[in-house]
Amino acid sequence: MVNVADVSHDTSFKGTGVVGGIRYASAVWITPRPALPTAGAEIPEDNRENEQNRFTVAADTISSRLLTRSESATGAASEVLKATAGMVDDRGWRRAVAKNVKAGHPAEYAVVLATDKFIAMFEKAGGIIAERTTDLRDIRDRVIAELRGESEPGLPAVDGQVILFAEDLSPADTAALDTDLFVGLVTELGGPTSHTAIIARQLNVPCIVATGTGINRISSGTKVLIDGSLGTVLVDPDEDTALAQVEESRALAAKIAQWTGPAQTRDGHRVQLLANVQDGATARTASTTAAEGIGLFRTELCFLSSTEEPSVEEQADIYARVLEAFPESKVVVRTLDAGSDKPVPFTSMPEEMNPSLGVRGLRIAFDNEGLLTRQLDAIARAATELGRDDTAPTWVMAPMVATVGEAKWFARLCRERGLIPGAMIEVPAAALMADKIMPHLDFVSIGTNDLTQYAMAADRMAPGLASLTDPWQPAVLRLIKMTCDEGQRQNVPVGICGEAAADPLLAVVLTGLGVNSLSAASTALAGVGAQLAEVDLATCRQAAEAALDAEDSQQARDVVRAVIAAG
Amino acid sequence: MVNVADVSHDTSFKGTGVVGGIRYASAVWITPRPALPTAGAEIPEDNRENEQNRFTVAADTISSRLLTRSESATGAASEVLKATAGMVDDRGWRRAVAKNVKAGHPAEYAVVLATDKFIAMFEKAGGIIAERTTDLRDIRDRVIAELRGESEPGLPAVDGQVILFAEDLSPADTAALDTDLFVGLVTELGGPTSHTAIIARQLNVPCIVATGTGINRISSGTKVLIDGSLGTVLVDPDEDTALAQVEESRALAAKIAQWTGPAQTRDGHRVQLLANVQDGATARTASTTAAEGIGLFRTELCFLSSTEEPSVEEQADIYARVLEAFPESKVVVRTLDAGSDKPVPFTSMPEEMNPSLGVRGLRIAFDNEGLLTRQLDAIARAATELGRDDTAPTWVMAPMVATVGEAKWFARLCRERGLIPGAMIEVPAAALMADKIMPHLDFVSIGTNDLTQYAMAADRMAPGLASLTDPWQPAVLRLIKMTCDEGQRQNVPVGICGEAAADPLLAVVLTGLGVNSLSAASTALAGVGAQLAEVDLATCRQAAEAALDAEDSQQARDVVRAVIAAG
Repeated sequence: MVNVADVSHDTSFKGTGVVGGIRYASAVWITPRPALPTAGAEIPEDNRENEQNRFTVAADTISSRLLTRSESATGAASEVLKATAGMVDDRGWRRAVAKNVKAGHPAEYAVVLATDKFIAMFEKAGGIIAERTTDLRDIRDRVIAELRGESEPGLPAVDGQVILFAEDLSPADTAALDTDLFVGLVTELGGPTSHTAIIARQLNVPCIVATGTGINRISSGTKVLIDGSLGTVLVDPDEDTALAQVEESRALAAKIAQWTGPAQTRDGHRVQLLANVQDGATARTASTTAAEGIGLFRTELCFLSSTEEPSVEEQADIYARVLEAFPESKVVVRTLDAGSDKPVPFTSMPEEMNPSLGVRGLRIAFDNEGLLTRQLDAIARAATELGRDDTAPTWVMAPMVATVGEAKWFARLCRERGLIPGAMIEVPAAALMADKIMPHLDFVSIGTNDLTQYAMAADRMAPGLASLTDPWQPAVLRLIKMTCDEGQRQNVPVGICGEAAADPLLAVVLTGLGVNSLSAASTALAGVGAQLAEVDLATCRQAAEAALDAEDSQQARDVVRAVIAAG
Repeated sequence: MVNVADVSHDTSFKGTGVVGGIRYASAVWITPRPALPTAGAEIPEDNRENEQNRFTVAADTISSRLLTRSESATGAASEVLKATAGMVDDRGWRRAVAKNVKAGHPAEYAVVLATDKFIAMFEKAGGIIAERTTDLRDIRDRVIAELRGESEPGLPAVDGQVILFAEDLSPADTAALDTDLFVGLVTELGGPTSHTAIIARQLNVPCIVATGTGINRISSGTKVLIDGSLGTVLVDPDEDTALAQVEESRALAAKIAQWTGPAQTRDGHRVQLLANVQDGATARTASTTAAEGIGLFRTELCFLSSTEEPSVEEQADIYARVLEAFPESKVVVRTLDAGSDKPVPFTSMPEEMNPSLGVRGLRIAFDNEGLLTRQLDAIARAATELGRDDTAPTWVMAPMVATVGEAKWFARLCRERGLIPGAMIEVPAAALMADKIMPHLDFVSIGTNDLTQYAMAADRMAPGLASLTDPWQPAVLRLIKMTCDEGQRQNVPVGICGEAAADPLLAVVLTGLGVNSLSAASTALAGVGAQLAEVDLATCRQAAEAALDAEDSQQARDVVRAVIAAG
């Protein structure tokens, strides 16, 4: 019912547009994963060494192919490919395969068995380790295809511009993506916060996710026109019209390329654009963009491999590396957002039935205040040592605040250390109680990803519920409005962090609702800034009103687009 | 921070009051569970038969003791005790113990090993089977204590009125509870929706949960005064004052006993009181109370052991048994509220990371509309066959509605079958979008348990978050207010189901907010009705305003109590 595409005629499909831009090219499907082998006949003993060699050659081929690709890629993409190659070379995994071959299994099946064993181990470890099982399956499939002499699964070799179609994309697939050739992405699964969407945003490739299986009817080679804002896929469109639309879209892209900031509407209403970062490196990258500061420093990501809590001094050093990147601008530090679904080893949490509704965020400090106060001490120390002051303020916010009592408690601990306290508004209760919570705080920042997840009672990682976990849901916009209205009444700045801040169209709505700042991946900021420069504040306000009054997220997008076009 | 008891002096403690009533008696702690044995020395072979006999005698003793108790108990309590005895007599479990004894383990350790094996099996099965592990541990502990000649864990033998203190209570503990002797319950753990709270409400025993570990300082034999409304435990109070308070509380209980219904405020404002049921038996019980109909028929509980979907005819028969109990009154049927946390075998769901935020409720029909339409066909058939009409209307509501589109879809399927469509308001988005959702529906019912869980982003089953998962949280009351306001504007009846409707004090607030009906366990209705009879509508409205303006759930309770006292 809910995921059924709104198909107006046979040759168009609709999904969720996550990166804007219009492209017209041939569709090409990702090379499918090989069918997995079953046990098969036992390899005679005198043939097993040969079988082992066959495996070693195949694995080495895949590994060196990935490494070659990693050398021609840059930045994060290069890292992902190098890490994947490292998994193919992993001694433990290779030993496990060798053991199976020695026991008489054919190499293909030996790879399956060894990988299954590692998948089970990774899954048992849980958390981000468990997420690496996608990579394990990926190297398994590549090696098996190589052993069989089949095409390597993943990106096909292409000789011209294409639009890539896939069920979903793995990190290794997207890392190798040459955006001169692969000019658009369309996937059946995924949501606005899925891996595919995040990568597409980083690479700035027009992208549509969650189309459903209907697109299976589009075969490789068919010409398609995709609109990454509308989320539409048009099959075999009129070529002239298609090319004209692409031209228009390129013109917009050029505007984005020219945009320099700071962000303001056509009539000069300023909105601060800030960057989401997780360490010194991402903060330094952000400092080379139009980001006017940091709107979300995710401190928990500094400690994913720390089995012991770093000392106050050690933490202060880590935080200083981020603060240093913006010596004269605002930096918003979020205290540890850990929990059983985001494990930080030194905060060891018991397993929970529903980790996202469990002891996470600020709650980990309910029974362990020292964990929080030591982090606040470290932030205060870093800020003091760098001589930061009112012109380069250090704001600190707590994740998962749900009650007035929590806000009061956190604010007191911050003020005792000379820090400026704020809270994430990501639990619906916090938005509903903004009138009572704000008097205790100096600022708030709306975390749209979690706010959406809780308001819609839908896990943002559940692929089947992607149409619900959309920040364009009017219910979510209404919670944002409550928060903004109260912020204006009480003169408390309201920011947005989360994927919503990276969506240029939604940025128009958020500006109309009255947010003071938008914080997103630094690569997304120019697109947002360029869009805001095209509209005036009255149009933003009209767009916000129209979106609040929409029945669902699709209607909200449509009416906002209409308001902007008319404005 | 949040769970710290608000201790005004050394000799008082505060938890969450879940069943009202003031009691003054000696504290008595539940007999602790025995320390579990370690492997121990091997039993010589010629002694093993003797060891096996020792086990058999102990197990038989426990089993017959439980059966005797089950005979002197009634209703559900008797069933629980009989089921527990049945587990002690389970052939599989006994065989597993015998095998361990035969292998040379002492009987005590053989019991531990056998039980661990069954616990692992039960946990693997998941869902409600996994919940039975509490019972397994319970019988293990009883048999081990018996083998050692120690007191049977659980309820101690007492010869006068006492107030029972425990970390938490198991079903077997509470089933045997003689409420003439055990006149109050106080537990360190649990929340308003925990097992202890539900049983206390059924037995109507004053009860306080979630006090935290501070009450450990109260030793058995100490006189305590508990107030199950305020959630307070006072140690060694002034005896005269204590007795006077108890007297006053008894007078209120007498009023409840005399109350007959239908429910209305002192000045004649009617509120419909309805019953929550799950099958023909509970519906028939409800029909002997003041319940004016059924406000929530949980259909999924009919199918917990159905591995195949019952046919429309079979389902119609099951539903008819409930409808028959109220041949001349409204019955509200909720369609299957299944999901990976509430497994109905024939709707087999994949495992999910966060079951409570997953594919549950109406969502199970997104990809399987037939599951829903067959159930609606069965409900329509049962209603038609029983000749139900406008004087005995059959209302049907969908669980977990989150969007306007879902409401429209469900309403259409109902109307096509001549059924009256409604929706649960339990996802925050549904309350926030009540203006857009209600035009499609004939009624709504607010599910406060889930609404609280999502609004506060806190799992209702997580013991550490009990202070958050409280329907008195002003954020939750504000969502209820939005729904009621919109219901009044659109002339759509608004009901409440969920534990909130069973709380007399909260019923005053809900009446003030404008709800039309309250649906709860039928045993709770008289307490609610008697409370409403004491106040007038203006007081209810004042109470509602005061609660909406409170900072937290405790303050909300306090201000409402003050408003009622002044009214």
